[in-house]
Amino acid sequence: METAFLYENNVILLISCPDRRGIVASVSQFLYDHGANIIHADQHLDDELNLFFMRIEWSLNGFDLTVKEFRQRFKQIALKFKMNWRIVTSKDHSKVAIFVSRQDHCLADLLYRYRQNELNCNIRVIISNHPTAKKLAGFYNIPYYEIPINKNNRKISEKKTLLLLKKFDIDLIVLARFMQILSADVVKHYPNKIINIHHSFLPAFSGANPYFQAYNRGVKIIGATSHYVTDGLDEGPIIEQDVIRISHRDEVDDLVAKGRDLEKIVLFRAIQWHTENRILIYSNKTVVFS
Amino acid sequence: METAFLYENNVILLISCPDRRGIVASVSQFLYDHGANIIHADQHLDDELNLFFMRIEWSLNGFDLTVKEFRQRFKQIALKFKMNWRIVTSKDHSKVAIFVSRQDHCLADLLYRYRQNELNCNIRVIISNHPTAKKLAGFYNIPYYEIPINKNNRKISEKKTLLLLKKFDIDLIVLARFMQILSADVVKHYPNKIINIHHSFLPAFSGANPYFQAYNRGVKIIGATSHYVTDGLDEGPIIEQDVIRISHRDEVDDLVAKGRDLEKIVLFRAIQWHTENRILIYSNKTVVFS
Amino acid sequence: METAFLYENNVILLISCPDRRGIVASVSQFLYDHGANIIHADQHLDDELNLFFMRIEWSLNGFDLTVKEFRQRFKQIALKFKMNWRIVTSKDHSKVAIFVSRQDHCLADLLYRYRQNELNCNIRVIISNHPTAKKLAGFYNIPYYEIPINKNNRKISEKKTLLLLKKFDIDLIVLARFMQILSADVVKHYPNKIINIHHSFLPAFSGANPYFQAYNRGVKIIGATSHYVTDGLDEGPIIEQDVIRISHRDEVDDLVAKGRDLEKIVLFRAIQWHTENRILIYSNKTVVFS
Amino acid sequence: METAFLYENNVILLISCPDRRGIVASVSQFLYDHGANIIHADQHLDDELNLFFMRIEWSLNGFDLTVKEFRQRFKQIALKFKMNWRIVTSKDHSKVAIFVSRQDHCLADLLYRYRQNELNCNIRVIISNHPTAKKLAGFYNIPYYEIPINKNNRKISEKKTLLLLKKFDIDLIVLARFMQILSADVVKHYPNKIINIHHSFLPAFSGANPYFQAYNRGVKIIGATSHYVTDGLDEGPIIEQDVIRISHRDEVDDLVAKGRDLEKIVLFRAIQWHTENRILIYSNKTVVFS
Repeated sequence: METAFLYENNVILLISCPDRRGIVASVSQFLYDHGANIIHADQHLDDELNLFFMRIEWSLNGFDLTVKEFRQRFKQIALKFKMNWRIVTSKDHSKVAIFVSRQDHCLADLLYRYRQNELNCNIRVIISNHPTAKKLAGFYNIPYYEIPINKNNRKISEKKTLLLLKKFDIDLIVLARFMQILSADVVKHYPNKIINIHHSFLPAFSGANPYFQAYNRGVKIIGATSHYVTDGLDEGPIIEQDVIRISHRDEVDDLVAKGRDLEKIVLFRAIQWHTENRILIYSNKTVVFS
Repeated sequence: METAFLYENNVILLISCPDRRGIVASVSQFLYDHGANIIHADQHLDDELNLFFMRIEWSLNGFDLTVKEFRQRFKQIALKFKMNWRIVTSKDHSKVAIFVSRQDHCLADLLYRYRQNELNCNIRVIISNHPTAKKLAGFYNIPYYEIPINKNNRKISEKKTLLLLKKFDIDLIVLARFMQILSADVVKHYPNKIINIHHSFLPAFSGANPYFQAYNRGVKIIGATSHYVTDGLDEGPIIEQDVIRISHRDEVDDLVAKGRDLEKIVLFRAIQWHTENRILIYSNKTVVFS
Repeated sequence: METAFLYENNVILLISCPDRRGIVASVSQFLYDHGANIIHADQHLDDELNLFFMRIEWSLNGFDLTVKEFRQRFKQIALKFKMNWRIVTSKDHSKVAIFVSRQDHCLADLLYRYRQNELNCNIRVIISNHPTAKKLAGFYNIPYYEIPINKNNRKISEKKTLLLLKKFDIDLIVLARFMQILSADVVKHYPNKIINIHHSFLPAFSGANPYFQAYNRGVKIIGATSHYVTDGLDEGPIIEQDVIRISHRDEVDDLVAKGRDLEKIVLFRAIQWHTENRILIYSNKTVVFS
Repeated sequence: METAFLYENNVILLISCPDRRGIVASVSQFLYDHGANIIHADQHLDDELNLFFMRIEWSLNGFDLTVKEFRQRFKQIALKFKMNWRIVTSKDHSKVAIFVSRQDHCLADLLYRYRQNELNCNIRVIISNHPTAKKLAGFYNIPYYEIPINKNNRKISEKKTLLLLKKFDIDLIVLARFMQILSADVVKHYPNKIINIHHSFLPAFSGANPYFQAYNRGVKIIGATSHYVTDGLDEGPIIEQDVIRISHRDEVDDLVAKGRDLEKIVLFRAIQWHTENRILIYSNKTVVFS
């Protein structure tokens, strides 16, 4: 993945539509006519569903349309091919809220990467039901809101949370080991805009205590899964998974420790790909363009 | 795993018992008193269940007991520590029957390895509900019995099968992509002596068509699992698992193709470890000694 | 990799040229004008060298040019963009010679896959300096020529070999653990048409006895590398590599055993990608299109 | 690895000696006689060199010797078998100095783990030739000394460094991407007590700019290696290695980014195993006990 380009002045066009002849010819001719220098293009055809997917990235240098003008002029092609499409520039950074509970290893990993410019987004706020990560947030100068959650205040907590998300104009929620289930209401407000890290190789061991479940089943490999959050618990489109080998010597604590390192990298990759506009979702699956 | 020793004149002692002080001291003193030259030893303690497991391998050269004498003399120690134990020599080769259906990639892989002396066992017979692999069996000079299975003849087929297993004095059944479910009756006759390869990363996608299930769920990694067969479908103790990365580009056929290579190696390792007497089973899990 | 398409009636166009605006637009417009239904396209830009690479696959169904006509008409575009290009159909199978010495695990693996239609090529002849694999070749009905090689007959052996390659009209030589070095003369006749499997993670441990070298260095992971053969020993463009973890318990024999399984899969993938026309070579590197 | 035990009141005995009969019997009888409850034991035999290695861990609860008494009494056995041996308790924490230059991702990773009690050591001081990581060190309350290094002050810098190491009574130096070569003099003072992370899969790409070297060679997998520092550059005993797949799409920057995540985990594991007294060194290799 040629990340070097990402921080330059580029445009990214994402398309999905029914497959038919002429899509690539029309799009590439349109771009050529307006002086686009294509830096990267990737496409995918789902043969079974006859769906076509494409991601094109080009430089604004030499391109004779503004993004606004592009939106106007590209409509015709989009209509003709019945495209779902969106265009973003590499400067349209996602505005991110990170939710965390007591376990802050994913958060610490993300904040460090953020400071090192490994993440193409703005982390605007951290929301937690515990004070654990407050100092860490402070070190990286990210606003930290503690909103305790318990049986009695769930409704109120959620309302507070939604207000914060609105206030910070959030368009990506990252559940970085947030040990609470978001209500259907919150999920509804952020369709395909909430990324969770689940500490198992889904669909195995969904729900609570996956490392304990894995230990009891006696598996020889454990995993972690990042996915978009939908109404069904741990059932949303999978973005990334990774695994590590374990043995009979590993107890639950060892699984937890080994798993932490998986969780960090698997969540990081999901955020990176989402914020680089590499992901298209369909049929409860993801296309991740390289 | 120091396989070099396996084909020499060695003895392997496997022990499991409640953990208490003095086990290692007693066993190693006993072996020393009889001139054993220990080549390899490995042990494991399940702290939670307070169970101790051990595998010791020593050379018969210089050892002053026969296996028979050992069995007599070791009884005392075994009783004292309430041991489950067994002793085998590296020459006590497992007598193996391989069951296969139409897909013979695992069989082909195993037969080649067998010819190259990669497998520490005797493959005595191949049983199939199809004629597909007959020629292959012929090339490697292994008896091949075709026992068709359908709704009407299931009972008779099974009876024939059991007779064959008896005739060939089989003590390890390998289901090398055998697409039939063994009846509880057969399983009962061969407890912890039937190894199956399941073409998914269990417990995900148990049952039929795991690659199709995996494709539909949109996972990013697929796997294969070798396990001992028990009454519960795909629920027996897991011996080995391995995985391979896939992407949105991979269709079901690609998953099947990539999976085949996993199945071969994962089944091979299970057979290798079983026949090298490296596996102890407890709590529906395996200890695999290195 | 959508291998399902491979065995259909498709055309594959491979292009490399200096990068400039309009390449994709021109090519895709040309294909559209002639009714091409694009099944798969992948491209790559080497930013540093300003080189553009592309692979397009489309169906001959509905395409209004023959391959011959395409060659005529496409010339203009090719000239304009200074393209290196080639066009093949999925029916233009590579004509393969496999060279092998005493170790025939890679050969056995390839022959089985070949019979199962996992390989998109014709294996026309096996050439060996030993009789070891003769029976195996016979089982799969592939002509087998034994050409012994020693200090005195090297020139003659090579001449015989070249004649055989000519006789069988070979366009891909696979060195499947062929323990002899091909002379510069043979290599010169088959530029980028000889694939070797080296039993190490190149560039580490090039030359003789890589497993012994790896054992002595005390590495914790070993590998295998498939590459095109050039004049420099083990220095040609790398096609694929894979690795497996080892430990202090593994002796040289164990490395050899674990390595065999790597060698098989790494060589297989290289042949698969080569024969599916997925590989472009430049700067002593490979682009492997998915 | 049963890390749960590590933070309890345990003793670890490490032995290496020429192999002969009776070692295990003598040691385990001695431990039994003094009431040791063995929690973990692992052993290794280098068959070629006829060397025996062992690591035993037992609880001080119920053991009737102090560590001091053990040292006295065990001498006899040690002499008899010509053992190299050492005994440590799980409370004898390594006193660590971390050296870092401008790239502080390994440092950040280690400090976070340290705070979370993932590391069984005391990080006493951070030494750097740059001010980059000062704030980070401050956040975790670790003393930070900036000792600039250039052509003219190398001798003085080194002297300062050695004084600091002495002052903080350091017994493990971790080079966490310290881009300076330690002089033979420093190395001599800390034999097998300096751990470096090299950003390649050694022995490939030793020396400067390994990612650039890897990019130029066109490898398909990159790696990282943690090793003990010896006089020969990047030639010391390897402790751990890990790898990640790359493709033609990855430029040098991408290799650097992917490599960072390898470096972190590979260095962490080395420190973990060293400080848990799991490593024995011989023949420029490591035995890493599980």
